[in-house]
Amino acid sequence: MIYVQEVVTRDGFQNEGHFVPTNKKIELINKLSKVGLNKIEVTSFVSPKAVPNLRDAEEVMDGINRNPNITYSALVPNLIGARRAVECEVDEINLLVSASNTHNLKNVNYTTEQTFEKFNEIIDYLSNKKISINGSLGTSFGCPFEGQIPAEHILNLIEKYFELGVFNITLADTTGMAIPNQVYNLCTKIINEFPTINITLHFHNTRGMGLANVLEGIRAGINRFDSSLGGLGGCPFAPGATGNICTEDLVHMLYFMGYKMTVNLDKLVNVAKYLQEIIPWELDGQVIKSGKITDLHPR
Amino acid sequence: MIYVQEVVTRDGFQNEGHFVPTNKKIELINKLSKVGLNKIEVTSFVSPKAVPNLRDAEEVMDGINRNPNITYSALVPNLIGARRAVECEVDEINLLVSASNTHNLKNVNYTTEQTFEKFNEIIDYLSNKKISINGSLGTSFGCPFEGQIPAEHILNLIEKYFELGVFNITLADTTGMAIPNQVYNLCTKIINEFPTINITLHFHNTRGMGLANVLEGIRAGINRFDSSLGGLGGCPFAPGATGNICTEDLVHMLYFMGYKMTVNLDKLVNVAKYLQEIIPWELDGQVIKSGKITDLHPR
Repeated sequence: MIYVQEVVTRDGFQNEGHFVPTNKKIELINKLSKVGLNKIEVTSFVSPKAVPNLRDAEEVMDGINRNPNITYSALVPNLIGARRAVECEVDEINLLVSASNTHNLKNVNYTTEQTFEKFNEIIDYLSNKKISINGSLGTSFGCPFEGQIPAEHILNLIEKYFELGVFNITLADTTGMAIPNQVYNLCTKIINEFPTINITLHFHNTRGMGLANVLEGIRAGINRFDSSLGGLGGCPFAPGATGNICTEDLVHMLYFMGYKMTVNLDKLVNVAKYLQEIIPWELDGQVIKSGKITDLHPR
Repeated sequence: MIYVQEVVTRDGFQNEGHFVPTNKKIELINKLSKVGLNKIEVTSFVSPKAVPNLRDAEEVMDGINRNPNITYSALVPNLIGARRAVECEVDEINLLVSASNTHNLKNVNYTTEQTFEKFNEIIDYLSNKKISINGSLGTSFGCPFEGQIPAEHILNLIEKYFELGVFNITLADTTGMAIPNQVYNLCTKIINEFPTINITLHFHNTRGMGLANVLEGIRAGINRFDSSLGGLGGCPFAPGATGNICTEDLVHMLYFMGYKMTVNLDKLVNVAKYLQEIIPWELDGQVIKSGKITDLHPR
């Protein structure tokens, strides 16, 4: 069973060149809630000044119709964000720290160490609430400033999350630097060392290796993947390059490889086509252009 | 050792919406001849009416500076084409037949069987000449009209090539329908049954699975891959979808995975950037936009 976790309205819209209207976000999430996805990262409770595209976090969280089979998650950078997310009764709070110290400093002006210290107060605050916590590690497969991140460092940071009682962890390839055999090797190490932790892989397709990396993750034993409808979600360091791995292309591949998923490919592709209607430029997703491999032409 | 075989001036330009000027083709091939590629499929000696974009086949073949380390190949559909190719002293003639009967009929108005019969006269004609022959099987991983092509059928067609004395065979995924585990399974079967044949895999990225398919081919034991600079090369059945797998993205991935190749990644990326200058729309290649994973930003 492969779990497909949608991030388009957070990671996708966050990086868009324009603000997607709140009602369009809600409409999109409501459609996504009907296709069998396992998780939807709805938004980020971040400062509206820092990420103006997601300034409507409360309105979106409060406006959607929730499907009880889906975990509705939100990214939270600090205690203020956590309070806002709790107000909106999110199912899961997603914490984020960059494995790369340099990247973390550029991103939130704290060292990786300092960010972990700040997680303490968030986790204390959440301790008596029925909200899951996911811990994300940005730049897990490489940093655009520091380059390679040693596997040992990633294992240490997972240990830190583990000590905080966070057992769901996302390895995020923030700027699309993961290489297939690196994915296999790192995931194998982590699974051996932390067999009880649930790992999610979050890939970007910045250098075209996204789906190849997914397959190496699966070979290593990972079965949770973040992806973004239409492949939305750019990277400020690679203008014009593709964004997150594309949900419908991912599901298309895994479906025809025979993997079991709860997501319905046809319904998902239809929502991707709807997304193309509300986004003013051509999406990177391929299957919405090419059709499924079973969509045959008349002889 | 992985062999990288460039097809941009044939498969790429053949499908372009415009005629690339002859001198630009020659300039591009001359640049490609300096980056360590193993083979270049230069052009196709096909009727100029059928493929007007390649109407300058002789001029291009005669105009380029050849590197003795590279096999300069050309696609040849019939005896007339073979004579033209021999006149130009190509190193290799590439024969093509679709595994799908329907696709072959639509393509050349002959059944697959009839095309194989016609290969006889070409091979007879070439028998006393020092020219390699490669036999391509189009739609090896699926046909846009017939759908799935049984592995047994592919094995039979390879047997036919084998009986004709053709021991270099390309499995072409003409419209990007190959699925990673299918690639692994089919290649494993072929290698078991025909251990002396050299197999090339020719993938299109029409549904985003191109590089994942390459890795499954390598896992099965294949080490020759066709690809197209910038990912050029569309498919008439999937307007807007990506074309062939992109040479520089392929080499980037394999290089950082540690595979040995003769091709130089940096030089190759520079030629891809040159290609972007002479093609009026944005290429699908990612690495020319994102840079290599080792191209770091100042801290």
